[in-house]
Amino acid sequence: MNQDTMKIPQATAKRLPLYYRFIQNLHSSGKQRVSSKELSEAVKVDSATIRRDFSYFGALGKKGYGYNVNYLLSFFSKTLSQDEVTKVGLIGVGNLGTAFLHYNFLKNNNTKIEVAFDVNPEKVGMEFGEVPVFPLAQLEEKLLEGNIEVVILTVPAPVAQSITDRLVNANVKGILNFTPARLNVPASIRIHHIDLAVELQSLVYFLKNYSNDDTETSQEGL
Amino acid sequence: MNQDTMKIPQATAKRLPLYYRFIQNLHSSGKQRVSSKELSEAVKVDSATIRRDFSYFGALGKKGYGYNVNYLLSFFSKTLSQDEVTKVGLIGVGNLGTAFLHYNFLKNNNTKIEVAFDVNPEKVGMEFGEVPVFPLAQLEEKLLEGNIEVVILTVPAPVAQSITDRLVNANVKGILNFTPARLNVPASIRIHHIDLAVELQSLVYFLKNYSNDDTETSQEGL
Repeated sequence: MNQDTMKIPQATAKRLPLYYRFIQNLHSSGKQRVSSKELSEAVKVDSATIRRDFSYFGALGKKGYGYNVNYLLSFFSKTLSQDEVTKVGLIGVGNLGTAFLHYNFLKNNNTKIEVAFDVNPEKVGMEFGEVPVFPLAQLEEKLLEGNIEVVILTVPAPVAQSITDRLVNANVKGILNFTPARLNVPASIRIHHIDLAVELQSLVYFLKNYSNDDTETSQEGL
Repeated sequence: MNQDTMKIPQATAKRLPLYYRFIQNLHSSGKQRVSSKELSEAVKVDSATIRRDFSYFGALGKKGYGYNVNYLLSFFSKTLSQDEVTKVGLIGVGNLGTAFLHYNFLKNNNTKIEVAFDVNPEKVGMEFGEVPVFPLAQLEEKLLEGNIEVVILTVPAPVAQSITDRLVNANVKGILNFTPARLNVPASIRIHHIDLAVELQSLVYFLKNYSNDDTETSQEGL
């Protein structure tokens, strides 16, 4: 638990990984300082929001100077616990699951998929990068053994709840749920949902009902 | 442009497709009425939020009775323009793109992927379901020919901007961007971003920095 950042709004917290990625890019390209306007253009978040977000972390910038890139980098690195790698399990090695396995999460990130699970005997025993695929029957065993508390759920919706019940027993604390199923879990477990069909439908709804002038930004999901 | 719903908050608008799906489920199971508490348990959105969301659409429910399922169904169907199918193009038939093609978006939905594009000669000419894969060289031609104004972008990040520039010329109005790239587009084009690495990092950040008691809900992304 990081007491310094306990009180920042969730909307701000959700933008931190995005800021961090671009600050890394700036640092790699040798940039020493950056204005909120430049950051805004890069990450597509309006500069007032950026200034407000950064203000929760204290005085990171100076008026007329902007922000010091090195300072931002070390600050965000610390805030996002970039020195600690969180081990992740992936359940369901279908197309979406395979897409995850092919990402190199560790590159810009503090998360690493360590184990994957599937019911398909043809997939069990395979490796994607260095990630082995285990049979679903070994779910609890392998998660507990690896002390893995975060999972990505990319299984068919009809089995999502029964697998989730097993995750609760395997001491999982966080689930990134890509199934359309809404999952029943104890309040101690955090679930973030990403429903691809709902995301597409939401985009269409906005296109039909809002002109971009009506909305705070035409770039959502930041 | 639907004038009735012009002023609802974006956060509410983003939940509409989710509500609609569950109201369809209730209707299919023969349920006649539903309370905000029951809806809340099904969609994992707190009931106060549901009541506030529904209030933007006028008096849809009655105290002590709840909401009439048939009325909600026809209301949401109309609001979400379920009678109009929006044609969608998919660019990049990798693992993530293939996952999209295997979804049956039309089933619960008003969107349908009609064409896909890829640079890989082995994929060009294939069909997924009924969706043909065209060479990327035919992007503008096929989008304009099919009057397709919404696309899903599942291409490697380094080519995302150059393809986006071509989409602008092909009269595309909305982009669901799954690449980590932030795209430069005219203000008239709406982009929703879904960055899988950022979503995972965000979940980990919340797990480390917020106990579930601190937050409005332990289920995000609704």
